[in-house]
Amino acid sequence: MSEQNDSQYTLLNSISLPSDLRALPMEQLPQVCDELRRKIIDEVAGNPGHFASSLGVVELTVALHYVYDTPYDRLLWDVGHQAYGHKILTGRREQFHTNRHFHGIRPFPSPAESEYDAFTAGHASNSISAALGMALAARAHGEKRHVVAVIGDGAMSGGLAYEGLNNAANTPNDVLIILNDNNMSIDHSVGGMKHLLHHLLTNPTYNHLRYRASNKLMSIGWMNEHRKRILLRFSNSVKSLLTRQQNVFEGMDIRYFGPADGHDVIGLVRTLRAIKDMSGPKLLHIHTVKGHGFKPAEHGGALWHAPGKFDPHTGELIRSDETGLPPKFQDVFGHTLLELAGQNEKIVGVTPAMPSGCSLSIMMKAMPQRAFDVGIAEGHAVTFSAGMAKDGLLPFCNIYSSFAQRAYDNIIHDVAISRLNVVLCLDRAGLVGEDGPTHHGAFDLAYLRSIPNMTVASPMDEIELRHLMYSAQLPEQGPYAIRYPRGRGSQPDWRQPMHAIPKGQGRRLKEGRDLAVLTIGPIGMTAVQAIRSYERVHQGVSIAHYDMRFLKPLDERLLTEVAATFRRIITIEDGTRVGGLGTAVLEWMSDHGCAPAVRRLGLPDSFVEHGSPAELYHLCGLDAEGIERAIGECVPGV
Amino acid sequence: MSEQNDSQYTLLNSISLPSDLRALPMEQLPQVCDELRRKIIDEVAGNPGHFASSLGVVELTVALHYVYDTPYDRLLWDVGHQAYGHKILTGRREQFHTNRHFHGIRPFPSPAESEYDAFTAGHASNSISAALGMALAARAHGEKRHVVAVIGDGAMSGGLAYEGLNNAANTPNDVLIILNDNNMSIDHSVGGMKHLLHHLLTNPTYNHLRYRASNKLMSIGWMNEHRKRILLRFSNSVKSLLTRQQNVFEGMDIRYFGPADGHDVIGLVRTLRAIKDMSGPKLLHIHTVKGHGFKPAEHGGALWHAPGKFDPHTGELIRSDETGLPPKFQDVFGHTLLELAGQNEKIVGVTPAMPSGCSLSIMMKAMPQRAFDVGIAEGHAVTFSAGMAKDGLLPFCNIYSSFAQRAYDNIIHDVAISRLNVVLCLDRAGLVGEDGPTHHGAFDLAYLRSIPNMTVASPMDEIELRHLMYSAQLPEQGPYAIRYPRGRGSQPDWRQPMHAIPKGQGRRLKEGRDLAVLTIGPIGMTAVQAIRSYERVHQGVSIAHYDMRFLKPLDERLLTEVAATFRRIITIEDGTRVGGLGTAVLEWMSDHGCAPAVRRLGLPDSFVEHGSPAELYHLCGLDAEGIERAIGECVPGV
Repeated sequence: MSEQNDSQYTLLNSISLPSDLRALPMEQLPQVCDELRRKIIDEVAGNPGHFASSLGVVELTVALHYVYDTPYDRLLWDVGHQAYGHKILTGRREQFHTNRHFHGIRPFPSPAESEYDAFTAGHASNSISAALGMALAARAHGEKRHVVAVIGDGAMSGGLAYEGLNNAANTPNDVLIILNDNNMSIDHSVGGMKHLLHHLLTNPTYNHLRYRASNKLMSIGWMNEHRKRILLRFSNSVKSLLTRQQNVFEGMDIRYFGPADGHDVIGLVRTLRAIKDMSGPKLLHIHTVKGHGFKPAEHGGALWHAPGKFDPHTGELIRSDETGLPPKFQDVFGHTLLELAGQNEKIVGVTPAMPSGCSLSIMMKAMPQRAFDVGIAEGHAVTFSAGMAKDGLLPFCNIYSSFAQRAYDNIIHDVAISRLNVVLCLDRAGLVGEDGPTHHGAFDLAYLRSIPNMTVASPMDEIELRHLMYSAQLPEQGPYAIRYPRGRGSQPDWRQPMHAIPKGQGRRLKEGRDLAVLTIGPIGMTAVQAIRSYERVHQGVSIAHYDMRFLKPLDERLLTEVAATFRRIITIEDGTRVGGLGTAVLEWMSDHGCAPAVRRLGLPDSFVEHGSPAELYHLCGLDAEGIERAIGECVPGV
Repeated sequence: MSEQNDSQYTLLNSISLPSDLRALPMEQLPQVCDELRRKIIDEVAGNPGHFASSLGVVELTVALHYVYDTPYDRLLWDVGHQAYGHKILTGRREQFHTNRHFHGIRPFPSPAESEYDAFTAGHASNSISAALGMALAARAHGEKRHVVAVIGDGAMSGGLAYEGLNNAANTPNDVLIILNDNNMSIDHSVGGMKHLLHHLLTNPTYNHLRYRASNKLMSIGWMNEHRKRILLRFSNSVKSLLTRQQNVFEGMDIRYFGPADGHDVIGLVRTLRAIKDMSGPKLLHIHTVKGHGFKPAEHGGALWHAPGKFDPHTGELIRSDETGLPPKFQDVFGHTLLELAGQNEKIVGVTPAMPSGCSLSIMMKAMPQRAFDVGIAEGHAVTFSAGMAKDGLLPFCNIYSSFAQRAYDNIIHDVAISRLNVVLCLDRAGLVGEDGPTHHGAFDLAYLRSIPNMTVASPMDEIELRHLMYSAQLPEQGPYAIRYPRGRGSQPDWRQPMHAIPKGQGRRLKEGRDLAVLTIGPIGMTAVQAIRSYERVHQGVSIAHYDMRFLKPLDERLLTEVAATFRRIITIEDGTRVGGLGTAVLEWMSDHGCAPAVRRLGLPDSFVEHGSPAELYHLCGLDAEGIERAIGECVPGV
């Protein structure tokens, strides 16, 4: 930060913790918001990260920390990428330039980083359930703690949020859910009516009277909890008659307030104060604009969700020259799917809310009738695909590897049992880098391998991805998972003709004598470098390299050859060592009475932190240097 | 079936397929219903299975097959235990006495059994997603197929159902969702209003006019899909103003009809005919009584869900003498949890809709403030537990093993990353028997083992279960899974004092020289028998037996001893061979440079069918006979 910039932050720089914020007079809050917004813009312009979401909740962030006694009161951000302002106000302003760096500030709220981060918030839709748990814990301990969950309207499409709401309505609690509605995807048909409702209900007198009356009746024994619920329903019915409107939340016995202007910090403070101490679960619906206060982002859509570097004044995106670089796996997926869909009319595409991220957007644009964004709803994405497959379509369902954990039962129960032809494309497999432990695709190889009837494959490069996609759409392949990482591959000239790869067929990339290296996925490219480097230094040593391609079924012919030829094997994968490729090789060797020494390289049995992919692969011993070292330890006689 | 009984079924016996039903005049449907109900009562009285749910939907079943052209039209039952009537009417009447038997009629709808069973239906809440997929497939193929999902109000509490509804509202389709509301748990506040709505809206003239107008506007270009959506919203608003009521479903743009009397078959036929060909997603809300038509079941609550044998006339339950039998693991869990909760005030209990099944009901009755049934919502159950754990409570979250697949991401993201003190009790682990492949707890050992920070244990008997529960509630144990099977253990005298078992500590049950048998869980009792039997026949052979207790962390001291002493090992578990205990032992041996021959016994890499547990364990080679055979194949020199 330059001196000049720092002078912009006269108020912000006086706030180390929310207690400092709370010492300010309310009139100064708009200035705090301006400075906080400027700070986020300046920081993210030079140090890329999530952007538009945090800009949209600047006023909400300030209002919440002003009204609530954080960290004693609990504040949950769902999804956590809107929490940059929260991080800056809660003791992390000076370190914020390390956001998303290795050993720096974490990409999402993390209780391990700060007591102000109430809960892990990398995957969407978990806030209401966790908040309800915290509210019951406070009640059990006799604490007068407030618990607030802030949930985006996108996250509200996840089934977990609904399960949380449903239970919140049934369990005594005072949780406040703030629905941060920033793209109008939920229920925008009745705006005027809700404004009316908002003014009616946030009136403290009205509620005060209502609750005084209720308490009075309780104290004289005319009312018990059962009757109170009936009265609440009755009250909602009356309100519904009055306003000629009842909404989803009131239908669940969750009191609804809103919609409120999420960019009016003074208004938000007043509203929050008015409803803060009301009993029972309640929902405040606010409207915000993603990217608010930074014109290019206000109208820039998905691009500004995580824009990369940009000019903090003009908003011009700073792009490096990408000519001649290999393509992203995502783009290869997107273009190849469209190409295949042109040839095979059974193919449809499904994504749970990641059309840009996974490039299904390419097919959605060209064939809108055949490609579906189902919202943040991974379980549904898979079961919906299963339904289509049952009646003859061939869905390519693309889910980020770590989010597919949400669909585990759907894969087993709805797809695998009936051996349906669903192609599961797991994007963001392996270490994703800066998004950290909640987002690494570390477990997919292991959790898919145990499922009967599954085919599990991972391509070493973009051209192999195309072949596997082609192979998966051939008739009657059954459940077929293809997992590949985020980012660029290795083949600039990727648009090669496709051909079928027989299921379970690996390939020998290089012959050798002293050691066999077995890899799956793009980490095979790293192994190629490591082997080349090791052989260059150690003349006379020769190392064989096999690209397994398939984790399941394994290539038994290839393994037979390996077992017959080599006494030492290294397996390499970018997933957990516990249950993945190396383990599968051990099982096969054991079942076939072979006992080569097997060194399994993979992710450790711990959650890997955040950082650049290069830093993290180095940390895990999975860069060329680490693999070369492992080779050195395994080559006989060295 | 006796001759006398058969004569009761004059109409039913003329119906082999729904086409026979559809040939009857409507006036005969009440008699079909009476006979079908009698048939279900007679069958289930003598051959136990699910009961009250199927009785409740007799009229709906008959009406649906009468109005819809099954199997061309798709009919999805959610959950599938209400589908006995459906099975009897669709070609399986004569085989129905084999229901739930090994190689007999399957316990739930299964596309592999009948083309009338549109989708796998063992786990709740998947019907809307699958139905939507089928509807889109029909549209893609130009088929005029109707798709109907029947979902219970319990299943409606699952997040997957909400994700399906949410998406159904956004995607062009004509799906009919029938909400079978049989315990009034959803939205029973506004009955009178909904009756009014029902009569208003099922009037074909009203809807016919509305759709004619819409199509006319489309044809002359005044309306496109976007405008149509606006008009639909407008229309809903108008309706809402008229009736002073808008409900959850209409709020999602899903047209609502109901509530209808689910026991009036003629009325149901008329209603279904009226709405059958309407475009757009729609929901018909019907009220039924679980157990309808069999008095004891109508008022018997959860008991009659799956009552066991009973007298078909009096409803008297036929109980065998259970004196002196060992207890069920479920009861030991329930009583032990209450006992521990009395000593440790941090303990709370959580179940997703299985309080009787898992015996959390014992604590719910004694400590209603500290035990929670959250509905069919496994993901929420875990994240809610995580929230409580984050703020100092100690939840015992009890989920059936196969249903916990629904909570896989919650276990990873919400519990394990933050190493929260959540005790996950996985009931129904291993082969559950008659409920079949959707319900076997086959994968839990494998899918939990890959998760960092987890402790995974399984007790060999009821007393060990108590010790493990005691150990799990000690301070700061982190995520701790205890999995155990359905049904009786082996220790009638189970109520022994509890003590701590150090994390990761197994035990040597028996010394030996020739072979080491390593087991986890109650299958260790079977191994004890097998070893005893083998040694009796083969004098001089001595076999060691270790109860590992913990899959994770492994007992490294014990494994070191085993590796140093034995060249041959058999591992035995009642979970999949792919990734469980045997695999963990292979990994450990490989990592420590040991190469004993390891024979892994466990469930095969395929979905195991239904049957009695004894039949299925025999099938999988996991009964005493199979284990003894495996021992014989492994003992050196034999």
